[in-house]
Amino acid sequence: MLRRGVERWQGGHPWIYRADLNGDPGLAGGEVVRVTDSRGWFLGKAFYSKHSKISLRWLSFDDVAVDADFFRERLLAAESLRKLALPGEKTYRLVHGEADGLPGLVVDRYGDFLSAQFLVPAMEQRKELIADLLQAQFNPRGIINRSDVGVRNLEGLVPEKGVLRGERPGPVSFDEGLVKMRADLLEGQKTGAFLDQRENHVMASQYAHGEALDCFSYVGGFALQLATRAKHVTAIEISEAASAQLRENAEANKLSNLDVVVANAFDFLRDAVDDGKRFDTIVLDPPSFAKNKDAIPAAVRGYKEINLRAMQLLRPGGILISASCTYHVDEQGFEDMLASAAADARRRVQIIERRGAGRDHPVLLNLRETRYLKCFVLRVL
Amino acid sequence: MLRRGVERWQGGHPWIYRADLNGDPGLAGGEVVRVTDSRGWFLGKAFYSKHSKISLRWLSFDDVAVDADFFRERLLAAESLRKLALPGEKTYRLVHGEADGLPGLVVDRYGDFLSAQFLVPAMEQRKELIADLLQAQFNPRGIINRSDVGVRNLEGLVPEKGVLRGERPGPVSFDEGLVKMRADLLEGQKTGAFLDQRENHVMASQYAHGEALDCFSYVGGFALQLATRAKHVTAIEISEAASAQLRENAEANKLSNLDVVVANAFDFLRDAVDDGKRFDTIVLDPPSFAKNKDAIPAAVRGYKEINLRAMQLLRPGGILISASCTYHVDEQGFEDMLASAAADARRRVQIIERRGAGRDHPVLLNLRETRYLKCFVLRVL
Repeated sequence: MLRRGVERWQGGHPWIYRADLNGDPGLAGGEVVRVTDSRGWFLGKAFYSKHSKISLRWLSFDDVAVDADFFRERLLAAESLRKLALPGEKTYRLVHGEADGLPGLVVDRYGDFLSAQFLVPAMEQRKELIADLLQAQFNPRGIINRSDVGVRNLEGLVPEKGVLRGERPGPVSFDEGLVKMRADLLEGQKTGAFLDQRENHVMASQYAHGEALDCFSYVGGFALQLATRAKHVTAIEISEAASAQLRENAEANKLSNLDVVVANAFDFLRDAVDDGKRFDTIVLDPPSFAKNKDAIPAAVRGYKEINLRAMQLLRPGGILISASCTYHVDEQGFEDMLASAAADARRRVQIIERRGAGRDHPVLLNLRETRYLKCFVLRVL
Repeated sequence: MLRRGVERWQGGHPWIYRADLNGDPGLAGGEVVRVTDSRGWFLGKAFYSKHSKISLRWLSFDDVAVDADFFRERLLAAESLRKLALPGEKTYRLVHGEADGLPGLVVDRYGDFLSAQFLVPAMEQRKELIADLLQAQFNPRGIINRSDVGVRNLEGLVPEKGVLRGERPGPVSFDEGLVKMRADLLEGQKTGAFLDQRENHVMASQYAHGEALDCFSYVGGFALQLATRAKHVTAIEISEAASAQLRENAEANKLSNLDVVVANAFDFLRDAVDDGKRFDTIVLDPPSFAKNKDAIPAAVRGYKEINLRAMQLLRPGGILISASCTYHVDEQGFEDMLASAAADARRRVQIIERRGAGRDHPVLLNLRETRYLKCFVLRVL
């Protein structure tokens, strides 16, 4: 491995890029390899990927056997964090890839079911081993494979999904604080739901008051929480299917103070400002606005437009919960955008909380690349 | 006011520096002034300070009367945030200066008592008005003046303290989660205690397990929380007086699983590593290591030394709660230091939470200068 790769590795970064390899190792991909510097000194063990720009993913600094026991211990270590940070919870991310020392593996728990993603060839090749270990350790009623994601293509893998072990689940019910949610583990977004926002959803209920507005509602993760405390909630969702599911979720939770408007949130916000509407609590949780670096300026313009309008719509003392899952807009960039929106709105804005993904989505200290979710709680004076 | 000052003001920054003024306004200091650009256009109202490098502090973008009603409304707005974010709490920062639109005023509530700081001439001159408004609005048993802080010298004010209204309190008791704490409002640190770490103290109890170590313990804000869950806590505090108070606090809370060691934390950590000791939970909450920019490199070295040793002392899966109140080392710098310590320790470290001061210490979106407290929850693999 070349010097800059060695330095990054020793600095604790768990990835080595193709450009930092000393030539093509001539492997098929998916192997566990011994990593050495250009003089042959041992540096650790890693997964090798042939097709990805990320060639090596850290497994260990020591020359250990990467076998069933190795993976079992990593799974147990992952579980112990969730037991400590989320005692009593039954729905959470159980394994968060690199951050849990298991590169290319995501496992979400929804009560009695597990939903997994295998994202690199080495994990794909160990799919049955991992499924056996998960079955033995956690005894789920079923394990779903939700590897139907485009990122697999970068690794030379085709997307796939299905049932790996046990039963095919129907819609799975899970709690977010006082709210009951449902997830379709085979057809829903990601592994079934957006678990990264789970703690932020519950937090939102605490701040909800008065007339509330939730934009980009999807199936109601934030809107239902707002409805547990606010006088009334207007939920804006452009998809008819998601809107229908949101209405069902509201009914199942006996929350009758919520109206769903099928609309584009940008249009709704513009019209609401023009009509002089006022709210006490607003949530903005849009889908990603930028899939690559070139799209950053447009994404920031989009964020500024909706945040500026939200600030204009809030009564003095109103709460704005503003999220962004756009990896390419980092926390600093997001905060600068918010400051610019506040200046244009001529409003003083307090930061009450700066949050990220839940505690079951740890971030490696040396791998900030995996920090993507921002969620600010602001108070607009 | 000069152009760069105008641009900063319109960009939402609430301070104007002396260098951005159009000459000396010839005022005595402490006045509420109308702020205009060089052509005389009205930009807002501000407090004027004659001696400080910060000449103007934002009060309003509008040409409003800055009278008793103005201050009463700002106090009510400040109270409403605490009622929303900390329902049922009786101890919190009620007014956090600029961030609550009340520059130079800090008010902490300890149950039935208020403890205030007047930090700029304009607030000092309105001390009696503010005390009257606080008395009328909150009906405390007493209001303490804790303006005995060096920062007043920069404003041409001498430090002072005393009882402003009502009774002189004895030691005041307050809750932090399950732990009872005591504060001496006239002789304790700051306004009596470190309220900015209050929420972090309570959070620490959740992660505490096994053999715990708390460094720079002071009177036990973190150590007592650890003791509610951990098997045993070793608390390191160099001051005999603080150690004695810590022991009293432990006794009052019937926490017998806590030993106080009167020692320098740097020495203790070095010796513990040399002796091969191991812990499951460690808290590092040192005093500020840098009072100015020149001291930053030494501060970062100090932080790295204690964090590296803490990482070496933790068993796999152990929790490190690492705080810094050094304003001159920002969050990014602190995180970089942690990453460097992790690399030197050859340990994988997960970030579980990145926290700051409590929600009763809001930060203005355009005034990052007031963000000083970092508190990371890390898990060392």
